[in-house]
This record gives sequence, structure tokens and C-alpha cells, in this order.
Amino acid sequence: MNLSSLGFFRSLRKDNHQFAVIGLGRFGRSVCSTLHQLGYQVLATDIEEKRVSEALNDEIVGHALQLDSTEPGALKEAGVFEFDTVIIAIGNYIQESIITTLNVKEGGVPHVVAKASSEVHRKLLKRVGADHVVFPEYEAGCALARTLTKPSILDRFDLDPDHSIVELIVPDEFHGKTVAELQIRSRYGLNLLAVSQDGKFKINPEPTKRLERGSAMVVIGCNRDINRLPI
Amino acid sequence: MNLSSLGFFRSLRKDNHQFAVIGLGRFGRSVCSTLHQLGYQVLATDIEEKRVSEALNDEIVGHALQLDSTEPGALKEAGVFEFDTVIIAIGNYIQESIITTLNVKEGGVPHVVAKASSEVHRKLLKRVGADHVVFPEYEAGCALARTLTKPSILDRFDLDPDHSIVELIVPDEFHGKTVAELQIRSRYGLNLLAVSQDGKFKINPEPTKRLERGSAMVVIGCNRDINRLPI
Amino acid sequence: MNLSSLGFFRSLRKDNHQFAVIGLGRFGRSVCSTLHQLGYQVLATDIEEKRVSEALNDEIVGHALQLDSTEPGALKEAGVFEFDTVIIAIGNYIQESIITTLNVKEGGVPHVVAKASSEVHRKLLKRVGADHVVFPEYEAGCALARTLTKPSILDRFDLDPDHSIVELIVPDEFHGKTVAELQIRSRYGLNLLAVSQDGKFKINPEPTKRLERGSAMVVIGCNRDINRLPI
Amino acid sequence: MNLSSLGFFRSLRKDNHQFAVIGLGRFGRSVCSTLHQLGYQVLATDIEEKRVSEALNDEIVGHALQLDSTEPGALKEAGVFEFDTVIIAIGNYIQESIITTLNVKEGGVPHVVAKASSEVHRKLLKRVGADHVVFPEYEAGCALARTLTKPSILDRFDLDPDHSIVELIVPDEFHGKTVAELQIRSRYGLNLLAVSQDGKFKINPEPTKRLERGSAMVVIGCNRDINRLPI
Amino acid sequence: MNLSSLGFFRSLRKDNHQFAVIGLGRFGRSVCSTLHQLGYQVLATDIEEKRVSEALNDEIVGHALQLDSTEPGALKEAGVFEFDTVIIAIGNYIQESIITTLNVKEGGVPHVVAKASSEVHRKLLKRVGADHVVFPEYEAGCALARTLTKPSILDRFDLDPDHSIVELIVPDEFHGKTVAELQIRSRYGLNLLAVSQDGKFKINPEPTKRLERGSAMVVIGCNRDINRLPI
Amino acid sequence: MNLSSLGFFRSLRKDNHQFAVIGLGRFGRSVCSTLHQLGYQVLATDIEEKRVSEALNDEIVGHALQLDSTEPGALKEAGVFEFDTVIIAIGNYIQESIITTLNVKEGGVPHVVAKASSEVHRKLLKRVGADHVVFPEYEAGCALARTLTKPSILDRFDLDPDHSIVELIVPDEFHGKTVAELQIRSRYGLNLLAVSQDGKFKINPEPTKRLERGSAMVVIGCNRDINRLPI
Amino acid sequence: MNLSSLGFFRSLRKDNHQFAVIGLGRFGRSVCSTLHQLGYQVLATDIEEKRVSEALNDEIVGHALQLDSTEPGALKEAGVFEFDTVIIAIGNYIQESIITTLNVKEGGVPHVVAKASSEVHRKLLKRVGADHVVFPEYEAGCALARTLTKPSILDRFDLDPDHSIVELIVPDEFHGKTVAELQIRSRYGLNLLAVSQDGKFKINPEPTKRLERGSAMVVIGCNRDINRLPI
Amino acid sequence: MNLSSLGFFRSLRKDNHQFAVIGLGRFGRSVCSTLHQLGYQVLATDIEEKRVSEALNDEIVGHALQLDSTEPGALKEAGVFEFDTVIIAIGNYIQESIITTLNVKEGGVPHVVAKASSEVHRKLLKRVGADHVVFPEYEAGCALARTLTKPSILDRFDLDPDHSIVELIVPDEFHGKTVAELQIRSRYGLNLLAVSQDGKFKINPEPTKRLERGSAMVVIGCNRDINRLPI
Repeated sequence: MNLSSLGFFRSLRKDNHQFAVIGLGRFGRSVCSTLHQLGYQVLATDIEEKRVSEALNDEIVGHALQLDSTEPGALKEAGVFEFDTVIIAIGNYIQESIITTLNVKEGGVPHVVAKASSEVHRKLLKRVGADHVVFPEYEAGCALARTLTKPSILDRFDLDPDHSIVELIVPDEFHGKTVAELQIRSRYGLNLLAVSQDGKFKINPEPTKRLERGSAMVVIGCNRDINRLPI
Repeated sequence: MNLSSLGFFRSLRKDNHQFAVIGLGRFGRSVCSTLHQLGYQVLATDIEEKRVSEALNDEIVGHALQLDSTEPGALKEAGVFEFDTVIIAIGNYIQESIITTLNVKEGGVPHVVAKASSEVHRKLLKRVGADHVVFPEYEAGCALARTLTKPSILDRFDLDPDHSIVELIVPDEFHGKTVAELQIRSRYGLNLLAVSQDGKFKINPEPTKRLERGSAMVVIGCNRDINRLPI
Repeated sequence: MNLSSLGFFRSLRKDNHQFAVIGLGRFGRSVCSTLHQLGYQVLATDIEEKRVSEALNDEIVGHALQLDSTEPGALKEAGVFEFDTVIIAIGNYIQESIITTLNVKEGGVPHVVAKASSEVHRKLLKRVGADHVVFPEYEAGCALARTLTKPSILDRFDLDPDHSIVELIVPDEFHGKTVAELQIRSRYGLNLLAVSQDGKFKINPEPTKRLERGSAMVVIGCNRDINRLPI
Repeated sequence: MNLSSLGFFRSLRKDNHQFAVIGLGRFGRSVCSTLHQLGYQVLATDIEEKRVSEALNDEIVGHALQLDSTEPGALKEAGVFEFDTVIIAIGNYIQESIITTLNVKEGGVPHVVAKASSEVHRKLLKRVGADHVVFPEYEAGCALARTLTKPSILDRFDLDPDHSIVELIVPDEFHGKTVAELQIRSRYGLNLLAVSQDGKFKINPEPTKRLERGSAMVVIGCNRDINRLPI
Repeated sequence: MNLSSLGFFRSLRKDNHQFAVIGLGRFGRSVCSTLHQLGYQVLATDIEEKRVSEALNDEIVGHALQLDSTEPGALKEAGVFEFDTVIIAIGNYIQESIITTLNVKEGGVPHVVAKASSEVHRKLLKRVGADHVVFPEYEAGCALARTLTKPSILDRFDLDPDHSIVELIVPDEFHGKTVAELQIRSRYGLNLLAVSQDGKFKINPEPTKRLERGSAMVVIGCNRDINRLPI
Repeated sequence: MNLSSLGFFRSLRKDNHQFAVIGLGRFGRSVCSTLHQLGYQVLATDIEEKRVSEALNDEIVGHALQLDSTEPGALKEAGVFEFDTVIIAIGNYIQESIITTLNVKEGGVPHVVAKASSEVHRKLLKRVGADHVVFPEYEAGCALARTLTKPSILDRFDLDPDHSIVELIVPDEFHGKTVAELQIRSRYGLNLLAVSQDGKFKINPEPTKRLERGSAMVVIGCNRDINRLPI
Repeated sequence: MNLSSLGFFRSLRKDNHQFAVIGLGRFGRSVCSTLHQLGYQVLATDIEEKRVSEALNDEIVGHALQLDSTEPGALKEAGVFEFDTVIIAIGNYIQESIITTLNVKEGGVPHVVAKASSEVHRKLLKRVGADHVVFPEYEAGCALARTLTKPSILDRFDLDPDHSIVELIVPDEFHGKTVAELQIRSRYGLNLLAVSQDGKFKINPEPTKRLERGSAMVVIGCNRDINRLPI
Repeated sequence: MNLSSLGFFRSLRKDNHQFAVIGLGRFGRSVCSTLHQLGYQVLATDIEEKRVSEALNDEIVGHALQLDSTEPGALKEAGVFEFDTVIIAIGNYIQESIITTLNVKEGGVPHVVAKASSEVHRKLLKRVGADHVVFPEYEAGCALARTLTKPSILDRFDLDPDHSIVELIVPDEFHGKTVAELQIRSRYGLNLLAVSQDGKFKINPEPTKRLERGSAMVVIGCNRDINRLPI
């Protein structure tokens, strides 16, 4: 999560247990089912009756309604304006997405998250009042590209532009060496946080722990140092 | 990155500097532009001439061709089968996506990554031979839901089912206390890895470092302990 | 013109002799041909080649280009961002209209006038930065309704909510009377400004001027007094 | 209102309190809602059920029916032929518009007003019998063009080809002068009718009234003289 | 031909050798090929290029052009307004048919014949100025119905509401009788005009001519008498 | 009626009072309404419910059913195979027309009349068994062309390739002459059958009858002689 | 039947009396009606209600349901997974065909036969688990081509790549000879199995049987020898 | 091959080396490629340019042209009427298929084979003159149904309604027995023609040949006897 979004997330109420999700496409369904599994109450809406009944049949949501979210009256009647947080998961129909966002903000909802499908869509959502915009296909594409070009780095957690935590495949030349022998801190200026073993991670591994080819390790430090690892 | 994908990523060649991307929608464009910015050579294709020329005009890719990837001959002629890694970024047309995947695997490409748009699409891609499948809208939906329900937790890095690294907003009751005073390791069994200050992170903060409301901190440990934090 | 638009019109440069019009539908064509007849230089654009060549053939505009105004690059290349005033005459395609408005404002054009096709369209145009919004079908409908219900009142010029200038058919009971006899000021509190005669208006008619059935007269005053006229 | 329409308007009955409006697009809805607010009874029809129910829900009309106005029988059954004045607000479908106009005139309605969408449409409406034709998008385009090229002139009321009433922004060189000092009648041959102050107009301002930059004034006179004003 | 059309046909110039036909559907092609075979010069037009080239390939017309007849400029440029007689053979597109008729009449063509496809179409064509309207599918339907119900009557030529010439199959009871024996004039008040023999007609047959079953005869007289024939 | 159709018409039963008409387009409606007005019972069918109910509402037919005539079972159930004569009035859908014709002939109907829309359609109808084919748009086009090129000839009745009856406008040089003076038989070899007067025809006019410009006359004779008339 | 399919056919249960057929196009209907006539119970499904009711009306199947076979739940509820053999007769919609095949195999059906419409379709069906794939249009095309090029050979039964049974028209030079005289075994190395006579076959014909031009004969042997026959 | 087609096949010229195929769908392509592989010259045509170039690229045909086969002139110009045998492989467009068949027969082609897609299509093809009609999807469906219900019978060759040759899996109770021991002729009245061994067939197996489970055998005889086999 980028630090610039700190303000939005700080403003969310921690005791909020209800969310409204507008749009039941791939993204919206995924938001609903995760919230539902975590035990939160979700009201979902879509303009297509078929998607609404599928969501109910698949039990990914507690309440679902067919409604046209470009109509303020329909949103009001459904009680959407009473929610603290509304997620607008309409990605493919820019016009519907921004009219809905406008309606929900004008209806007084304090926290509105919307999904963008392009750069211009993102700008329009901001202009009409969305508090937070996500852009999953773009972000997933960037992430895949970075992974493919650094296949040893399995995952990456950017703390700030200079520091990261990375999960990486144990480099061949570390194979068979103990944590103590590797001297990761003194040679690379990095801290070794965890080492995997049989599909589980050992946090703060013992100095006598021996690393093996094919397992994973996690380090924290500045990017310049990370790039010096033999990967 | 799930540990179960270790095998796929281990098999990627580290000195590979060329990628082919089939499909120039939102996801495909994002893969291309990231690879391009990282200095890799990318061949992109799409069935629509308009998308190909846009990609060239926007300079998100070095080479781009219009071709119908459901035709093996077209892929062969374009040299797609010579690549070590091909990304199939056709998400909305299941049939085209799986025929393309079949063609690319039959053409002998060792590493094929494909994007799925639904659960059944994911299964079909696996059946016809995709080596790695990504499902961004689904994954982004899950991630957003988790963030909204734990707004203090800004990002989360799942090491294994029991251990995680989390970035969180400094809890109100930690405000004004020093690292030494908080005794995070003894009270929660967690290691404090970093603390943000003015938009940057300080790794391994000094014990005298004082935490402040509105800044972020990063800890590592087992999930049960993380859940005991006052968030 | 509503007084609330004073600011916008004050900011227009009086020595501006060039306008760009985006969209060559009924409204856009009408703007172009009027400007052209008044001797101003107009650059017109439309996404359809057919409309562009019709505009050139019909000589309602000096320069016309086919371009997709949702693409900022196309607008820039055409020099649209160099204009002081741009009229966005895309009424039926809300999405295209607001993306174009966004593009033109981001391109730095100081005065942007846009045509709305509905109330929500009007709001969106304002949000994305339009300086002035017109809504002709709505306004013409209101005007027709008022005329039909007060057929004696041929036209009306609203000065403020309380005062108006109205053109009306000479009431039957004024027929054959002179201006002096009618005593419009003393009986109605209104000023008689002009009287029509053979298709032309006589301003400040003589007191001896005799009014006739079927001709028109123009008065100024407060609405309450106007409503007391025998119409 | 052009004087040439005097005949049509003179023939309208002043005690008519009922109107039928055919077509519930942007223009038709605007006619209906204005008539409804003025307290008149309106029967509205449209070929689309959805538009009919929207008009009833939005309460812009008292009675509304779904019917196909190209069928004389349907119009008759609905009682449309009993109305004194019918407004045909079908702008985009020329064929439907002219068949409806033919039907309504053949049904014996004395006053038929129709909306044109192009010059040829206007001619056809006249040929099939429309008594009065409006052409809002064209007229609004002309008006906007004139305003933009004379931004000081906020509105204009054409009395005849030679005389007008104009509302204009107080010219800079009039700023701070009194009405008496300006000598508008002797220097320009125009009569000053009103001056705005705090959003309201003062009719027949006192000679000691001082004009200020940014407010508006209204004059009457011949166009040649108006053009001599320092605007 | 109804006598009421006498005026139109009298006004046609007998030395006219050029016709323009607009629309190359079934009816238009048939008009063109007949005129062409009779040695007249024909200019044909259609909005579809394909139909124009077919007409030229099939050599049913001397000159043919693709043009949009709803555009007055296109008609003018093609020289259509120079013709004395123009046939508008656009039957299925009412709007195009009437706009074309309007254009051709406004262009000054003295004789305009148009094809109608329905009763309302016929009325509209008359209103916009067509000099003569044909309605073939309607007329052919009526004719077929009359023939089927009186199968002995092979063809009928209505002189006026009371008199006709009819071609009929020789009634069984006339078989083997001579013209003299039949006494058609004295018994039925009809004149026998011709009798068929071996596929040819004998006009004014001899009194000794013997009629035979299966051949045809032609009589003239009033309808009341014709109905008394044993058919 | 061409003599070659004698066989078909001779085979029709004279006491047949019932007809089935398939297809309620312009031609079919016209057949139905004429039969209905003549007092015959008609069963009409069409594949579109809307056309069926219109036919019933307009009272152009006694019985009408919605059915798909390409389904033999539907025709059988509706009793169409019981009729002596069936008219297939489906002109625009060749495939439906020929399948229906096949069905009706296989169902055992003795007399099937079908409408063709093109030459190939006519051939196909003959091949699948139609007893008589009409082609109204083609025939009407031919007739109009002949009339326009011989405007004096108002109507024409072809007896055989060499003989005709023609109705013509009285030639200018016949004006004011009596029947006796004209010597039509001796000068042209033609018989004068009738002369119009005040909109009615006089059969076998008196020798003293004077012909007048603008009225019509009817003659019978061989075509070579007819062409010698001063028309 | 190719010997390579022996495995699939050996695995079919001989006492199976129930089949499910998915898809009621030309091929599926033909499978259903043949099974039904042979006395087997068939459950048929199609996504179109119309096709389902047609199949029931035409009595080509005992049970038929409308369902969307791309939905596993719908197949399960209909009991399709309980069948031993399921035929997937969806040929034109590749995506639906392969998703259905995947569903049926995942549902546990042991024998799945699917129809392919192209080579790539065949491959995909194999990949997703079809046990046997038929490709009728392709196979029928091959068979017709072979017959047309060897018109004397009426049918051919390929035993293995070297041996066949062929039915052929009696060659002209065999006409009038007896089986004994022909010495087919000694001259050609072939066995004569049967000879047709009056539309029936005589198996193991007598040596005195005389062959006649225009009748057929059946021989078995190796292809090299068959090609030596005088055909 | 049904014996009733003997006449058609007898009429084919044995030295014909050229075929024209109209329609390049699945069936047409299969006919072309088989003829081409057998060394015959093929002219293929299709209305879609894309299919024509694919056929040439895939080298399944020597000559291929884009043309509209419903136009007799196009067929003539391409030389299609010169061929002895033409295959009309247009299955999905009934109207195009029958017009093409009509054209080809009227063009004088002696042998015309056409593909039907339904029973009514088959009848129409016969009516318009096709010499031989194939109906592959129907026939393949019947064949599959028979195979599935008698899985031991791998293939079947129907000689006449009473006699067949069948290839069957060796019944379990024949396993391990010699040909002599089985006494197939005396016990079943059938002749054993061949037995498979290692994927090849042995014709006229020795009496000492031992049959094995899982291999195939071929017998000839009357159907009643075949049904008595223990399968």
C-alpha cells in the first residue's frame, strides 16, 4: 500500500461491519465473497438480474438487489446512502461508473472506493469525488513483469522508494551454508528475517540453520544492498 | 507469491531478456510497459490493428504486430515460438485465450503464463498446458476486502499460513512511546522491523525512537500474535 | 442570460477571433456556421469523417479535421489546446463529452463551453471542469411551454426574478386607443418601450400613436405589474 | 419571437388549459414539466413504456400513455384529437415525426407545434401541415455563437431587423460615471432601461446612479447605435 | 388507368426521350429495362454502389450513378433536375422516398412519379409534391383477388364504374355454337369484340365463326350485363 | 392475362368460396381485403403476431392465425391443406417462400399461387411446384414505363402479340370532329369502341358524336394500325 | 472404425441402456432419434427451449430438458453425471463444447464422446478429457471425395492399411461371365463374397452364377490386388 | 452406399480428373483436400475472400476463387459450367445452396452433388435438380448411435436390408478357441472373413488360428444370424 493513501485508510471506521458493493463482475464478486467469508455484512447490487441471482445462489453475499445505479432514486431506496463505505466495482462501463460515483458521493457516503479501467477513467473518478481508486489489471501487470524479470524474487514489499522486504529463492552459492557463515548483515547490510523449510517459514532462524537450494528466504534492507545479492 | 509456484519460477532463465506478450488490453499493456521500462525487449501482438498502433505510438513496447494468435502459422511466422517466456494476456475471450495457449505450448515455448477471467477459465488454461495462471481481478478483489476490514493494516505479506509480515498504522495507544517502552517482542512475540518517518522507513529503529500517531510500522511474526496487537 | 454567468463572460477576451468547435451535430454545425458568417475563424472537429467533409462542402467552417477528441494526443496535434475558447458540442455521447472536456481543460484551454443532454450530464461537465454549460433542448422546451400558455406574450426577457421586458400582442381592449389614453405607466406601473407597425418597431412611440389589434408592443416593469395587463 | 409568427400565436385560445405532448425525450420532458409547474393539464405519450413510467414517477405530467403515434387509431382512442394544441416533440426520428404530424392534422387538431432536427425536416413538417416549427439545437447554436463573439452582450432581444434591446456588461470606460454624466441618449441615441445592482435590476435608474464595472445594463435602440457602444 | 389521372398524363411531353429513375430495386429495375428496351435514354441512380454496377452489367440502363438522393446537391450535380420526368422508385424506405420527392420537386422537375408502399406513404408523397403515385403491390393484390374469384374472367379493363371490357374463357354452354347463334347483343346487350383461335385473336369474328371450349372471347358492355353471362 | 395461363385458370373451381393467404405484407393484405369485400371467406396467416392482429383489427379478413408456414405441422393443424386455393404472399424471404410452397403442394393443395420477388425466385417457385406465379413489382414497372413513353395511351389490353385494345387521350387533330368525319375504320383499320364524356364512357358512340380535346377514346385493332394513330 | 479406438469401445458397458445427449442440432437430433428407435432411453438437453420442445414434439427422445451445460450445477441437478455414456453434440460453439466436456468429465462420467468442428477443436476436446472424438463433416467430405474419384467402388471397408472389403459395380468386361469363368481368386488373389441381384445380395454365389452389367459385387483382399481389378 | 444410388454413380465418367467444389466450410475443405491428395485437379470457390486465401495457403486445393455462386454470370465466367462434376458444399445457408444448385444445373453440369442440412433442405435440393444429396451430420449421428449401442460391433457394412458384413470385437467366449473349434459356419450360418492380429488383419485365417480376447474379427452373413452371435 502506498503511503500516500494513509489518509484515506486512517479515516475508515474500525468498527464498521457493513459494506455495499455495486457491480458483480469478476472484481466485485471477489470483494463480496472475501468480505462475506470474513464475517461482514454485504449488500451487493448489479443492473443485471442474472448476476444478482447468481451471487445469491453462490452464497457470496448476504443481500443482493437488482438496480440501476445511475438512478439516484434507486440507490436511495435500496439504502446504499446509509453505508459508511461503498465499493464501486463497475470497471467496463466508464459512464455508468462515474455517474454512480457521483450519485453515491452526492448521497453523502463518506468513503467511496472505485475501480478504474484506464488512466482517463482514474482521473474522471477522482474528479467526480472517489476517495480511493484501484486499478487491478494495471497493477497486476506491473507486478507480473517485475517477477518475470527477477524470477528469484518471489515477492516484494516496497516500504518506501529506497527500502524493501523481499522473499527470494535461496541463491545457488548460499546452498549448504549456515546463517552464521553467510554473514548477510556484514557482507550485504541486510537483515535475514526468515527461512522456509518444508513449506513453512522459520522466523529469526538460528545461526546454525543451514540454507538449502530450492527453499526461500526473506530479507529487509535498502534496495541498493538487495541488488548486490547473487540473484 | 505462493510457495507452490516455486517450481515454475525456479525454471525461468535468469539471463532471459526477451518476452512476448499476446493481447494488448489493460493487463497486457501494463505488462509490456513495465518490462519495457525495466529495459527488456518485448514483442507484443494483438488481433486488432488499432491496439497495435496505439502500443507503438505510446512507446510501451519495442516491437508490435497485428496477428490472429488462434492461427499457429501466424505465431510461427512472427517468431513467437522462439521466445523462452510468453505471456498470454487475453482475458475476455476464453476461446481465443485457450486456443492461443494450446498453440504456444505446441509450438514449444517452455514458459507460458496466462491470465484467467474465471475459475473455469483457469481450469481450462491448466488443461491445455499453461505453466502459470494469474487471475488479477479476483486477487485484487480479495486484497481490497481484507484491507477495508482491517484499515489499520496497510499491507500484508503472507509468508506461510501461520506467519506474516504486516505494515500497520501506529495504534493510538502506542503514540508517544519509545520502541524500548513498547516491548513488542516480549509482550506480543513479534519483531519490529521498521518505522516510517516523513514518508520514509527507518529499518531496525533505535530503542529510543518514539512512535507517532499517523505513521506506519512493520512487524514480523505469527498471525496469532499479530491479531493481539491493539488494532 | 442568467446574471450568475457574468463571471464567465467577463473573462472572455474581446479581441478573440478564433474558436474551436468539437462535434458537428445539429448544435455544433449551428455554432460553426454562425461564427463563420460573423467573420470569425473556426476550427471544427468530429470523430466521423463524413461529418467533417459535409461541413467543409457546406462551407460552414474554414478548417475541419477528423479526430477522436477522447485522445489528448489528437487534440494536441491539431492545435486545439492553443485556442482561447473551445465549444464541446457533443451532446448524445456523455462519456465522450466528459472525457473531451477533461482533456481540453487539462490541455490548458481557459474557456470551455460544453453542451449537456441531461441534468446528470450537466453535473459531470461541471465536475470535470467545464466553465459554462448550455442545455438547449431543455431550455427550448421551457420557453415553448411558457409561450403556449401565454400566447399573447410573444417573447420575454427576464432581467431578474422580479423584473422583465415582455413583447406582447396588443390586447383587444387597447385596440384603437392612443398611447396617451392608455396611461400604461399610471395604471400599470409599466413603461411602454416600443410598438410595432407594418413589421417594424417604433421605439418610444409618440403619445398620439394609436395601437391596433394584431400588432405588438414592448413594456418593461416588474412581473407583478405585467401580470395585471389584460392579456 | 419572430413577428412572422404573430398569426399562429394570435390564433391560440387564451383559455386553453390542456395540452398534449407526443414524445418524451429531453425536449418533450422539458415542455411537459414547465406546463405542469404552471398548473396546466398535460397528456403526454411516447412509444416507449419506460419513458412513460419515468415521466409519471418524476411527476412532470398528470397523464401519460404508451402509444404508437404513427397509428391514427391509437391517437384517436387516446383522445389526442380533442386537444386544441398538440406539441410533437419527436426530434430524432424524422419519419415518425412527420407521420405523426400528418395524423394529428388529419385528426382535426387546430394548433400543431413540431420540433425539427434539420432543415429538410423543417420543410417536411411544414408540407405535412405543422402550424409552427421549432428547431432548438439550431437556434441555441446561433445564440451561443453570437454571445461568444460579443461577450459583453449577455442577452439580446431582436425587435425587428433594425432594433433591439440588449443586456450588456457595463463597459470599462463607463465605470464610476453617473447616468447623467454618460449622456447615453445624446451620445448614442439609445435609451437606458435598467441597471443591475447586487443581482437585481433597477428600472429607470436615477440620473445620479453611478455605474460600476462588472454589473449589467439594458438599453433599447437601433442596432447601428448599439454597435457604437464601447464594447 | 383511372380517368382522374388524365390531367397528369396530358401534361407529359410526347417528344420526351429521357427519364431519370431513382432507386434500383425490383420496381426501379423493371421501369429502367422497359424504357431501355423501348429505346429511351435512362439515367438511373441508387444509394448502393452494388446495385448501380449490377444495372450497368445487366445492361438495363444506359447511364447509372451511385448517389444519395436525400442530398439535393448530389441530385443537382448529377443533372437530375434537368429531366422532364423523374420516377422515384424507393418503396421500402419511406423517409428517403419523401425527402427525395421533396428535393426533386424543389429542384424544379415538372413531372414526378413516386412509388408508395402504404396508404400513409401515399398521402405523404402527395403532400410533399408527387404528381402521380403508384402502389403496385396493393394494386396487384386487388387484381389477383378479382381474378381468382372469377376465374373465367382472364382480364378486365374498367372503362368507368359502369362499363368494362372483359376477356373471358368461353362458357361451356357457348361451346360449338356460332357467333350468329349466340346472339350476344340481343340476349346480353354486349358487343363481342374478338375470339381466340390457336393463341391468336380474331377481331370482329364472322357470324359463322364457331366458339370452342377452352378458347377465350372479349366483350364490351355495361357491368350489369356482363354479370349475366353464364360464367 | 397471358393466354398461356388459360390452363391454370380453367382448373379453378367456380364455386370455391374459401381462400387461404399466407403472408400479410402489402400484397397479402391487399389480396385479403379484396376477397373479403367481395364476400369470400379468407383464412390469413403470418409468422408475426403483430401483423395478424392488425389484419383482424382492420377487418380485412375473417380468420387469421399466427403460424410458421415453414413447419408442415403448423399448416396442417390450421387446416390450410383443406383449401382448394392457397396464395403464398411471402415476397421478401425467398427461403420461407419456397419452403412454404413445397409444404403446401406436398400437403395436397391443388391450386397454389405464389408471389415472386426476382427472376430466380420465380424459377425456384416453379421448380418446387407453384401452379401460378405473380411478380407485381416487375409487372408494374413495365406498365409504368410503357405509359410514360406513350402518355396519350392511358391503358392497354394486349390480346395477343399482334392485337390490342387501347384507351387513349383524344389526339389534338381529332378535336371537334365527329365520329363519322374521322373515318377511323377506313383510315386506320381500327374499330372505335367507346368515347368518354364527363367521366363516363359511351359505348358504340353515334356517328354524330363529336370528340373533344381532353377526353378519352377506346379502339381495338392490330398494333401496327394503332401505331399509325396521330398520338 | 479405426482399430486404435478398440480400447474405448471395449470399455463401454454392453448392458447400458441409457444415454445423455447434450446439444440438439442436426447431429444431436440424429443421435437421439436413432437411439430412441433402437429402444434405448435418452435424456437430451439443449440451451435453447425451442429445440427442447421440438425434440419432444417430434418424439425423437423420451426426456428432454432446457439447461446451460456450461454450468456444472445445472448438469448435476439434471442427473447427467449419473450416466455411463454422455454424447456432447455441440459442434458450432467451441467454448461451450469444451467447458461442457470439462464439466462432464469432472462430474465423473466414464465415457464421454464429443463432436469436433475443426482440428483445433479436436485437440482441445482431447486435452480437456474427451474419451472419443468424432468429426463428421470432415470424415464425410473425405468419403465423398474417394467415392467420386472411384465411382465404380460404391463403398469401402478398410480393415487395416493393406486390406479392405469393397463393394463395386460389376466391371463391363465381367458382364455375362459366370463366377467360375472369372477366376477372381486365381487372377486377382481376391475372394468374391457376394453378388447383387434385383436389389438383394447373394452371399457365396454359386460358380455358375452369371454376373451382369449394372449390378454390384463385394470382394475382400489386399489393396494392391483390388487396384488390379478392371475398374 | 445405398444400392438406389447405383444409377448416379454409374453415370460418372471414370476418366474425370477435375472437380469443382463450391463452399469452403468444414465439409467442402475436407472434400477438396482429399481430392487434392489423391492427385485430382480441384477448383474451389467461396463467397468469402478469407476462406479462399486460407484454402490456398493451406494448399488443400490447386485453384480457388472468390465468387458469389448465386450469380449465374459469376459461375460461368469462372468456368464452373465446364466441369463434369460439381460439389455444392454450402450447408448452412439453404437459400444460397438451392439457388446455386439451380444455377449449376441450368448451366448444364451433368453431375451435381449437394450437401443438405435438414430434411426440407434435402427435398428442395432434389426439386431444383441435385443428382445426389449427402447429409453428413444426420448420417454420422445415426452411425454413432448404432456403435454405442452395440459396442462390440466396431463397424458395419450393410449389403442389403437382410445381409451385412460386420467387424466385431472377439466375444469373451470365443477367446482361446481355434477357428476350427468355433464352427462359425455350422453354428451361426456365417462366414468368417478375417481376424486381426497385432493391428493387421489376416484374411481367410487358417482353421488352427486361435482367437484372442481384445482382437477383432470380420464375418459376413444374414442379419438374423449375426444377431445370434454372443455379443
